Amino acid sequence: MPDLQEHISASFSAQGLMTTLGAELVLVAPGEVQIALFPRPELSQQHGYIHAGAITSVLDSACGYAALTVAPAGLDVLTVEFKINFIRPAVAERFVAIGRVTKAGKTLTVCQGEVIGEHGSRRETIAVMQATIINVPGNT
Amino acid sequence: MPDLQEHISASFSAQGLMTTLGAELVLVAPGEVQIALFPRPELSQQHGYIHAGAITSVLDSACGYAALTVAPAGLDVLTVEFKINFIRPAVAERFVAIGRVTKAGKTLTVCQGEVIGEHGSRRETIAVMQATIINVPGNT
Amino acid sequence: MPDLQEHISASFSAQGLMTTLGAELVLVAPGEVQIALFPRPELSQQHGYIHAGAITSVLDSACGYAALTVAPAGLDVLTVEFKINFIRPAVAERFVAIGRVTKAGKTLTVCQGEVIGEHGSRRETIAVMQATIINVPGNT
Amino acid sequence: MPDLQEHISASFSAQGLMTTLGAELVLVAPGEVQIALFPRPELSQQHGYIHAGAITSVLDSACGYAALTVAPAGLDVLTVEFKINFIRPAVAERFVAIGRVTKAGKTLTVCQGEVIGEHGSRRETIAVMQATIINVPGNT
Repeated sequence: MPDLQEHISASFSAQGLMTTLGAELVLVAPGEVQIALFPRPELSQQHGYIHAGAITSVLDSACGYAALTVAPAGLDVLTVEFKINFIRPAVAERFVAIGRVTKAGKTLTVCQGEVIGEHGSRRETIAVMQATIINVPGNT
Repeated sequence: MPDLQEHISASFSAQGLMTTLGAELVLVAPGEVQIALFPRPELSQQHGYIHAGAITSVLDSACGYAALTVAPAGLDVLTVEFKINFIRPAVAERFVAIGRVTKAGKTLTVCQGEVIGEHGSRRETIAVMQATIINVPGNT
Repeated sequence: MPDLQEHISASFSAQGLMTTLGAELVLVAPGEVQIALFPRPELSQQHGYIHAGAITSVLDSACGYAALTVAPAGLDVLTVEFKINFIRPAVAERFVAIGRVTKAGKTLTVCQGEVIGEHGSRRETIAVMQATIINVPGNT
Repeated sequence: MPDLQEHISASFSAQGLMTTLGAELVLVAPGEVQIALFPRPELSQQHGYIHAGAITSVLDSACGYAALTVAPAGLDVLTVEFKINFIRPAVAERFVAIGRVTKAGKTLTVCQGEVIGEHGSRRETIAVMQATIINVPGNT
């Protein structure tokens, strides 16, 4: 796991979009990855709330990295597809995207994820995702 | 339609995320909206290609605005959910996200969309989306 | 809840397809409904396993009825859309489709569900679903 | 193609569920397959309309067989996942499920499909699907 954490942390840092969004990798565990996102005007939709695309981007990354934690050594992962439902307004002090592996196969991994909105001690699910990820030959 | 174009153009300009991504509104027509996106290091995933989240964000906006072109006057729209398949590597000189209305209902509108990658005169579909959008009371 | 159980039981019995599939309503609780399905040649795909469509049909019904358990009195529900992943071969002595409400809204309810395959005491998830259901005026 | 038509026709006939639903294979072409379904009380939901699960089952089969028309010789296909939107009431004299290949890859094929409801000469889209299918070693 230390190697896995380092590997995922390095990969995350190399994602220009995550830096652009101000996202932070907060947890890497076997089968689960969490990424935090903070509301900023640069991420807004037309009414000032955070854009569904920003929420989706960090949850996609959380699911992809969750899949990577269970992929055979040396392989990389690509998102095949996902579906996301937005179930509450994306208004919070901090958002945490949680990706969890539902089933890891030889070729495909299915993940389920959610984005939690935190308001002080209150936590609410903002969005839920179901994603399919494919193992591909690694770059290194 | 001039009013609709102005309305959507103003709304698009108010989306901080679209500015952050460098996205450009290129077409507003009844039932169809197109948004362009350009590859930049700020939008990359770990291998330097454009991040699936950036592709998804502009296609979500294109579908949402396509739904807005057919919504009753005075109403606004929210994305209920969508599903996206990534079918080719997101490598191109320019990406065009095209959202089209499949069925406009009183409450819900279903859109289908795709992202085209342009390489000179070659055009390839990079991703396809199926989305559900809901009409909500407008802010103004 | 007795009324709700009776209402859902009567509605289930009126679904010709559930009878055709040999499906059985096994649990009705607030926010959760379970439906059982048994392997039969009449439900097979080309290799003799149970067809994805049969699995999907009972899980769609389980999610729809789960949404109905939390709908305002007098309203009925319709499936807007769903997405399903098939994560293990549909081979079991009995299948149980479980639909659970993730978020009940005034107009839309989001459910998540799974189909469990039972082999003796072993239970494995066969499929997972994420569904959107809409409240509509009831028939009575 | 004659071989392909025979192969798909034989496979379709071996699907117990398609026989149970009374579905008929009406077109097999490279990249496209059509399956017809007829309203019957045995396929109904609680209000007498055709059940979403029956509609979904034939569209899943149409997409799967469309993928099979473009799969390398000797391989078989399995549905990985799909998403379906129901956009009009499933009321018609005949339904035609149309599955079309959007992108055929070495491992995965993405299909898009729709179900058309026919009322005399009028034809309306009832449902739209986006599906991911995987090539697997064939049984023969």
